[in-house]
Amino acid sequence: MRISELAERTGVAVPTIKYYLREGLLAEGERSSPTQASYDDRHVQRLRVVRALIESGVSIAETRKVLTALDDPPAAAHDLLGAAHAAVTPAADDLLDLSDAERLVAGLGWRPGLCDDHVLAGVARALHRIERAGFEVPAEVMPVYLDSIRRLADAEIACVPTESVEAAVRYVVLGSVIVEPLLLALRRVAEQVASAERFSTSA
Amino acid sequence: MRISELAERTGVAVPTIKYYLREGLLAEGERSSPTQASYDDRHVQRLRVVRALIESGVSIAETRKVLTALDDPPAAAHDLLGAAHAAVTPAADDLLDLSDAERLVAGLGWRPGLCDDHVLAGVARALHRIERAGFEVPAEVMPVYLDSIRRLADAEIACVPTESVEAAVRYVVLGSVIVEPLLLALRRVAEQVASAERFSTSA
Repeated sequence: MRISELAERTGVAVPTIKYYLREGLLAEGERSSPTQASYDDRHVQRLRVVRALIESGVSIAETRKVLTALDDPPAAAHDLLGAAHAAVTPAADDLLDLSDAERLVAGLGWRPGLCDDHVLAGVARALHRIERAGFEVPAEVMPVYLDSIRRLADAEIACVPTESVEAAVRYVVLGSVIVEPLLLALRRVAEQVASAERFSTSA
Repeated sequence: MRISELAERTGVAVPTIKYYLREGLLAEGERSSPTQASYDDRHVQRLRVVRALIESGVSIAETRKVLTALDDPPAAAHDLLGAAHAAVTPAADDLLDLSDAERLVAGLGWRPGLCDDHVLAGVARALHRIERAGFEVPAEVMPVYLDSIRRLADAEIACVPTESVEAAVRYVVLGSVIVEPLLLALRRVAEQVASAERFSTSA
């Protein structure tokens, strides 16, 4: 198909597709003439993934790394997740103190070596920001966070498809990143519902 | 205190403080001379909040709206959360179909009118992106998302302080936004731990 049909099938504008081609997020089509290239279903698939990542707030550079993990998956199933997370998590800062984060994630079943340092650093950074803002997660709430998040992750990992590496990579890499905005949006709805039930004067 | 001390106490650089002053995120200090202004503890507090919001990925314009909600809270406790969410959620698009989102959030205890349309639109938008990416949340996982998120929100709302409006506003507005990166970071750790337990060859 021509670039115009690719645009029509994915809903991504032609200038945007050309930008992704220049940025190397989408493979060049096969040249059919000096001024035209031809695209196939793999371009449609890939373009949908690229758009979803970018709309989820993943940067161009991070998207490129996620795509590399999709195209060239590590041999061990467990390392997939590490590759996907590494692509979208800033590198751990040597100066960052991980001890509070380590104590906290013990509640998730974490033991040394069971997850990558940069993911742990993400927790440390988030804790540090909350503290610097002068905010504190109530002591009763934190255990509920840990328990809820662990149950949610268990359900996700129990469903990693094992019939093919491609299916597993796709599930793990996309599922981890693309679902984040859904979880945050669901939390806002749930907060409003819980708040209405607690504070509303009209039943 | 002078702007240099304000910078020292908050760890925010003087040029950044001046930028926040120009953007109206921080009130001007009291003029002590034609070229100097004096700042107090309220500036320290406010500056910490501004930095935490911006580091959590909230835009300058959204930060300004969150600050307005903090400074001029709605009378009803329940409306606080709506004001905070409105500040950080894009407006609902008239063309967006909310029916799938409505069906989904029924699992959170949602009924018509129990949350703002723009928060519901956030769910619809997230679902739409996941679908366009060709991804699907497994049928076994979605109920776990809903149940975990509802428990987490219940715990948060149960802890809204009621001793003063200021304390309630601060808890609700900041807690909702500033905790998001922590929850996402905890999810990544939990996913890696669950994945290690399921796939790791070395026990």
